[in-house]
Amino acid sequence: MRRSIATVSLSGTLREKLEAIAAARFDGIELFENDFTHFTGSARDLGRMAQDLGLGIDLFQPFRDFEAMPEALFRKSLDRAERKFDLMQEMGAQLMLCCSNTSPAVIDDPDLAAAQLYELAERAARRNLRVGFEALAWGRVTNLYGQAWDIVRRANHPHLGLILDSFHTLSLRDDPSAIADIPGDKIFFLQMADAPWMQLDVLHWARHHRNFPGQGQLPVVPFLQRVLEAGYSGPLSLEIFNDVFRGTPNRRIAVDAMRSLLHLESEVRKLREAAAPGTPAAAPLQVELFSPPAAPELEGFSFLEFAAQGESAADLGRWLGQMGFERVGRHRSKAVDLYRQGGVNLIVNAQPGSVASQRFEAHGPSVCAWGLRTGSPLAAVNRATAMCSQRYDGPIGPSEMHVPAIVVPGGNLNYFVPAALGEMGLFEADFELAPVPEQPAVADLQHIDHLGLGLALDQRDTWVLFSRAVLGLETGDSVNIADPFGLVRNQAVFNAARSVRLVLNVSDSQRTRTARDARQQGGAAVQHIAFACADLVSTVRRLRERGVAFVPVSPNYYDDLPTRLDIEPALLQSLREAGILYDASADGAYLHIYTERFDGRFFFEFVQRIGGYDGQGGFNASARMVAQVDDPVGH
Amino acid sequence: MRRSIATVSLSGTLREKLEAIAAARFDGIELFENDFTHFTGSARDLGRMAQDLGLGIDLFQPFRDFEAMPEALFRKSLDRAERKFDLMQEMGAQLMLCCSNTSPAVIDDPDLAAAQLYELAERAARRNLRVGFEALAWGRVTNLYGQAWDIVRRANHPHLGLILDSFHTLSLRDDPSAIADIPGDKIFFLQMADAPWMQLDVLHWARHHRNFPGQGQLPVVPFLQRVLEAGYSGPLSLEIFNDVFRGTPNRRIAVDAMRSLLHLESEVRKLREAAAPGTPAAAPLQVELFSPPAAPELEGFSFLEFAAQGESAADLGRWLGQMGFERVGRHRSKAVDLYRQGGVNLIVNAQPGSVASQRFEAHGPSVCAWGLRTGSPLAAVNRATAMCSQRYDGPIGPSEMHVPAIVVPGGNLNYFVPAALGEMGLFEADFELAPVPEQPAVADLQHIDHLGLGLALDQRDTWVLFSRAVLGLETGDSVNIADPFGLVRNQAVFNAARSVRLVLNVSDSQRTRTARDARQQGGAAVQHIAFACADLVSTVRRLRERGVAFVPVSPNYYDDLPTRLDIEPALLQSLREAGILYDASADGAYLHIYTERFDGRFFFEFVQRIGGYDGQGGFNASARMVAQVDDPVGH
Repeated sequence: MRRSIATVSLSGTLREKLEAIAAARFDGIELFENDFTHFTGSARDLGRMAQDLGLGIDLFQPFRDFEAMPEALFRKSLDRAERKFDLMQEMGAQLMLCCSNTSPAVIDDPDLAAAQLYELAERAARRNLRVGFEALAWGRVTNLYGQAWDIVRRANHPHLGLILDSFHTLSLRDDPSAIADIPGDKIFFLQMADAPWMQLDVLHWARHHRNFPGQGQLPVVPFLQRVLEAGYSGPLSLEIFNDVFRGTPNRRIAVDAMRSLLHLESEVRKLREAAAPGTPAAAPLQVELFSPPAAPELEGFSFLEFAAQGESAADLGRWLGQMGFERVGRHRSKAVDLYRQGGVNLIVNAQPGSVASQRFEAHGPSVCAWGLRTGSPLAAVNRATAMCSQRYDGPIGPSEMHVPAIVVPGGNLNYFVPAALGEMGLFEADFELAPVPEQPAVADLQHIDHLGLGLALDQRDTWVLFSRAVLGLETGDSVNIADPFGLVRNQAVFNAARSVRLVLNVSDSQRTRTARDARQQGGAAVQHIAFACADLVSTVRRLRERGVAFVPVSPNYYDDLPTRLDIEPALLQSLREAGILYDASADGAYLHIYTERFDGRFFFEFVQRIGGYDGQGGFNASARMVAQVDDPVGH
Repeated sequence: MRRSIATVSLSGTLREKLEAIAAARFDGIELFENDFTHFTGSARDLGRMAQDLGLGIDLFQPFRDFEAMPEALFRKSLDRAERKFDLMQEMGAQLMLCCSNTSPAVIDDPDLAAAQLYELAERAARRNLRVGFEALAWGRVTNLYGQAWDIVRRANHPHLGLILDSFHTLSLRDDPSAIADIPGDKIFFLQMADAPWMQLDVLHWARHHRNFPGQGQLPVVPFLQRVLEAGYSGPLSLEIFNDVFRGTPNRRIAVDAMRSLLHLESEVRKLREAAAPGTPAAAPLQVELFSPPAAPELEGFSFLEFAAQGESAADLGRWLGQMGFERVGRHRSKAVDLYRQGGVNLIVNAQPGSVASQRFEAHGPSVCAWGLRTGSPLAAVNRATAMCSQRYDGPIGPSEMHVPAIVVPGGNLNYFVPAALGEMGLFEADFELAPVPEQPAVADLQHIDHLGLGLALDQRDTWVLFSRAVLGLETGDSVNIADPFGLVRNQAVFNAARSVRLVLNVSDSQRTRTARDARQQGGAAVQHIAFACADLVSTVRRLRERGVAFVPVSPNYYDDLPTRLDIEPALLQSLREAGILYDASADGAYLHIYTERFDGRFFFEFVQRIGGYDGQGGFNASARMVAQVDDPVGH
């Protein structure tokens, strides 16, 4: 499909916006007129600039408060339209968006609306231009696409068509099914927008909180299906009013925008391929949909990699040892150590000149990479690059294995490790492995349960879309957690089997630990790594015996717990003695405990899931946040 | 009145919160239980800590989902209550807040609710504790104070009373009049909260966007009047859930909180004093209301003061000269120059060791003070200090005048200049004045029309309350302006005569000019100074002849203008030639133009108001913001 985006969706000056849009490989733009009003060049200059960048001006928007007006206002609006047509011809735009009237002067008369739009289309036709009519969700009389289509049909002018916008339809919970019955060539343009569900007035919601398809909660995929079933063959375009995007560097947002459309197309294609032959969902389309490799089937974490050098690498090794990790190997060609316990592999990378060392120089000791096991790593990387992620190829030593990797938002590396290698195959190839000493279980770890990421506010939507489009993950509910310096919003992304979970944390406040960690590490920091254990109470007993320091939990917490949740007195007592936190849902329970932070940076969590508990103990995170107030910032 | 505040209203750990609350001179706290759950000390420790700080624990809150439940749940909740009563006795809290039930299990039966609350009160009474019942705005059955009062009345237990919260009543647009008829001694506690009007679901609105009385738009003053008319004599308390406050240093927020209550009391007192004797509004109360000096009657700007030294002071002097300001005097004892044109006095303060020089060292050339003319400067300063502002007394040289001053939020000084001195009296006393040369008018200035302030996000509510409580100003509408790097929210505060206007600007984005200026200058920066002229077109002509550089306006702006606003072609043509911006309302019009920035910092605006136009040309500010993209920040 031809792909387009409205200039209002990005930050920057008009020139910068166009450059970012072109760099993200869009075919065209919707010109949001306010961007032109303050542009220093002329309409002709703009047209030339767009052309030089290989961009068409697919839509000129918005033309407001036109249809169904008293005669005098109608005449005045026609003059106004002629001025806009002048501009469109100069800049080379052929389609104008006319959105439904919000003026108190509008008359509730579809025939009048049709007659006036007919005249507008007639004026446009004289110049070989076209007009598309769109129902705004807050239009005073016309706010549903069905009404707008009725008016367009009555007007019956070849230069007048319908413009659809997923937000305006889905925000009102209007049914998009009937779109499939509209003649495709009468749909002149399609704007796609997603949004989180909010109980907010629709105008405010629309102007501040839309986001790209795949970042929100609206059913955008079936919406696009219906439009394509109608036979639509025009551009697929994004018109996003979002306060955060307005303040985010436009190059990243433009890439997110493109990823969003590619993902959307591929999701529709997937549904079509699964549809029964002969059904409307399988009928041929007028457009070609993007066809990337399938999202990978992930089978869990293969390893996690820390960047650390010199003393900090030695300290980290000692800390891991205290928690029962054994140093079981050294890389054949690099200053890289492998630590292992149960099913968990941790790598400490101290190799000079590596990506890890760059990360260490920039951010100090930190997580710099992780590996995910999957059946076909190359397909996973190809999926990722098709979805606008960067591939990473590091230097490979003699007889070492090449493991494909990508760069995740914020700069960490995500390796895709062949599942066929099993838990240790990768390390047998690349590491000199020492025989593992027989010894009693210490922490008795099963696997990495989840990673907790601290994200800058403007990385949240980027990460949600990356998780869905590149890694094929689903999103969980959003939970608010009270940090002493602001609320933290917490949302998990995970695969269906729950063998890979990432927990995304953001806060509006700049002063929370989450915001500060994200800032210190370029917008996305792994704040903590959670290990799954079979029997947390005994694991914690053994770790405490070895001197591991955990975040203290207030006795008040345990006094309060039985007033909030049903819990056996004996279990409560053992949690209290061990300093373990507890949560429960209808499906099961969650026991967990946090270590102190390593060097004021990341920390570990040990968890035990019982039954079908599917969260991460959100409420309890406050216990840690209060205890971690160790570097106050002038509060 | 006794003054109290809920711990949830402030950021920080529980100890830090209590210290900030005590420092702001509150009498007591409401303990928000979550703050205690993660507190490392015991209930007894907390009680001691509060006592040491001179604070009572006036309320323990919240106790949820209690009344009108099936028997088994009711019994369980009684056990839960006993555990909370244990805590209350240990910490020394005598009143518990029980808020109306939000559980799906609640039964719609006021008699059952009354019976169960009776039992709860009976349990409380055995320990000499009390229970207050409050209607949550989102309570499942009970959400109006009238319903809650009906239940309390039915229960008829001396240890059970009503708790009122202005937010829960006013957010539902419920009528508070009937509160006056409730027996005052049955109202056990009063929580006051304000909020901006939002079309958002009430739970989300309540949990994230409340603010202190005087910062929002709810009719909190008449609400408090009704409660006092009922004969209420308990604490006046604040319970504010606000995402920004949670991330703001708690000392400042605690001072805002106290200022809010003092202002609220004084507003009620003012209404009572104006009420006709014999009416309920004039009947004696059970409490004493705060009685500060009246807010000052302001008569306009006397002067504006810049901090600048060395080359930057000389550059600034030359720049002012180019715009037609004459250097008319030098301070008798300080390195301070006076520039004047028409009715505008500008001071350039280069005095070493002064507050201005501290400001210059910290922030470079910038506005550091202004003077407002008023009939009684001392009363104005006394009003300000009564309302928790700091007084400033600088060094005074021989035979110089003492001008009382206060520190405004963010650190600038606000002088109150005796109106009796006239325009020049102050300067005749303190300055060696040179004879003003006869010369033709250059910019032909009348007065300072307004100051534009860039505020950090967390300074907005602080400034609104300061403007209302200390300076006696009113607030205008909030307008969104598109900066290329984010939306800027713009709101004016002004006196009734409009001789003093301040325009407050904030943005959520960290990357707008507004946010960056605020950050660079400690949270509140004067970004621009607007001068009123009688004939802007000729003023601009003369200024351009003298080489003054203005922000360029796109020709597209003038092409668009007549499609948005009715404007005479001749006026449009002269605006286009002069590069002047235009706005109009039903009451008049506004012509204005911005200079380039001085040293990348502040700039001037020249304005002409026609008729009753009462805004500041909000939409046009985008023209300037686009043109001022001179130091991009990695977009």
